[in-house]
Amino acid sequence: MARQPHSPATREFGVRVRELRHRAGLSQEQLAEVAGVHWTFVSQAERGLRNLSLHNLLKFAEGLGVDPRELVHGLRPPKG
Amino acid sequence: MARQPHSPATREFGVRVRELRHRAGLSQEQLAEVAGVHWTFVSQAERGLRNLSLHNLLKFAEGLGVDPRELVHGLRPPKG
Repeated sequence: MARQPHSPATREFGVRVRELRHRAGLSQEQLAEVAGVHWTFVSQAERGLRNLSLHNLLKFAEGLGVDPRELVHGLRPPKG
Repeated sequence: MARQPHSPATREFGVRVRELRHRAGLSQEQLAEVAGVHWTFVSQAERGLRNLSLHNLLKFAEGLGVDPRELVHGLRPPKG
């Protein structure tokens, strides 16, 4: 059974990374290279499995060529 | 000697949290309570000492009553 996303926030974050990556015409490996992270990290983040750090969030934004706000606007923290 | 911020990004993040907290008229303890984090975490984050997680970033934004984009727009990842 596929692992469940951490939270609605990490799931939505992953959806946005994947959409922006497709828009940029990048594979997961290519995004990983320009962002300076391992490609498995990209795959996990896109599946909402990573409650990633500020620095990694900024690496994703830079690799995707967007302002970091695109990846977090409107997201809410998990309850509890 | 005071510990140095992690990066320009965590330093700027901390500056924004402090400014928004003052604007909201909250003490560190009050922000910690509404955000659901320990007050020492607020203090460290404001000094740029925390490369915090997405969930904690969202907790800060909610506690400050702002959209998360306010805390990350324009930030760049550290080199290397």
